[in-house]
Amino acid sequence: MNLLLLQPNEVGADGVAVLAGRRLEHAREVLRVQHGETLKVGVKGAQVGTATVLEGPAETLRLRVMLDAPPPPRAGISLVLAIPRPKALKRVLPAVASLGVDRVVLVNAAKVEKSYFDSKVLAPEFIEGLLELGLEQARDTVPPRVEVRERFRPFVEDELGAWAGPGRRLVPHPTAESGVPRVPAKEPLVVAIGPDGGWTDFEVELLAKQGFTPISLGPRILRVEVAVPAIIGALRFP
Amino acid sequence: MNLLLLQPNEVGADGVAVLAGRRLEHAREVLRVQHGETLKVGVKGAQVGTATVLEGPAETLRLRVMLDAPPPPRAGISLVLAIPRPKALKRVLPAVASLGVDRVVLVNAAKVEKSYFDSKVLAPEFIEGLLELGLEQARDTVPPRVEVRERFRPFVEDELGAWAGPGRRLVPHPTAESGVPRVPAKEPLVVAIGPDGGWTDFEVELLAKQGFTPISLGPRILRVEVAVPAIIGALRFP
Repeated sequence: MNLLLLQPNEVGADGVAVLAGRRLEHAREVLRVQHGETLKVGVKGAQVGTATVLEGPAETLRLRVMLDAPPPPRAGISLVLAIPRPKALKRVLPAVASLGVDRVVLVNAAKVEKSYFDSKVLAPEFIEGLLELGLEQARDTVPPRVEVRERFRPFVEDELGAWAGPGRRLVPHPTAESGVPRVPAKEPLVVAIGPDGGWTDFEVELLAKQGFTPISLGPRILRVEVAVPAIIGALRFP
Repeated sequence: MNLLLLQPNEVGADGVAVLAGRRLEHAREVLRVQHGETLKVGVKGAQVGTATVLEGPAETLRLRVMLDAPPPPRAGISLVLAIPRPKALKRVLPAVASLGVDRVVLVNAAKVEKSYFDSKVLAPEFIEGLLELGLEQARDTVPPRVEVRERFRPFVEDELGAWAGPGRRLVPHPTAESGVPRVPAKEPLVVAIGPDGGWTDFEVELLAKQGFTPISLGPRILRVEVAVPAIIGALRFP
């Protein structure tokens, strides 16, 4: 945790925040904060800054909060992500939040196992917790908006065009002829990343009809938790 | 597992391999292979090809192996990697094997916890097992060579120059002025990736004296298991 993330309602009109629970424990056990010390903080959806420890950490932690800087710039990337196995999703969601992804739609696909939909990882409050871990890591305050769609084809045919908006649309697929394109830093991107077994050719055709260009990342088959940062790194660094 | 990885001594002069243990179980329980079916296989350090199931899977699995293609091309990247926490190392080693990294030297650093050196993850046979997972994922047969160095400064001052060889040397560091450079696809690269808390300025200076150019990945602080694929993606895709 490189930033203590506060909820907007936790900071009073006097600039004082009082914490308990997971963040109090983390502040005490891992950060070992002391009275008078200054921490990096951010308010969810708002600015970042510093907080001085007024009291504690004991049963609570009282902080004086000074917000004075914007969160880091966005990556300008939206992801259509075939639902990964729950264990992978628990790593991918913090990763995409830390990378500054704007939006994620988690979709079904032919090679997504039905049982994944029953996973507690897809519960909105669980997703929010995973995204907050990524924000705390990257010193960001703005989480990606995450949605879930249980049916691939209706989503792609009826919703995806409007959802994707003006961004350039790319779908990594091993048989694609072109590689990763050079994309101007400011151009918004929408990338459709398949499940561990890949998109089917039919799924790629449906995406292509919505303007998604197939691109190849080379012959190596990567796990989704490796592919996602690799693709974002290739498209958006520095 | 997208490729069944065989050890060189497992394939007889008659082209027949007999498997037991983890790979037999995986073939039976996950791949659900049937008599007569054809699987993708590779021999460690050698070619890839296919294998036909002659017998089993029962107590063993008998395969007729036909090797006919080279493994995928290398990424041409060597990593100097500050030893991550054991849980992260268990993810990073399969990831770097799947990405085709050539060599990894796991080094101590100021922000590496001493206890990490006692982790079973650093045992050579454990490392080898993690690398094999990555090879099976990416359908590769050639693992990165992994070494461990317990002292940072003597390694950097006395060994690193020769170890790095002719490759371009880069060290990601948040205060660097230049971003990720465009590097010709064939140029070998040596990248020094710090621990979760980053390299210290002193460590970056020691690396700079060995020809490592500091580069910035932007203001976001990434976990090592996210940073490694993102940096490799940025430098080597497509």
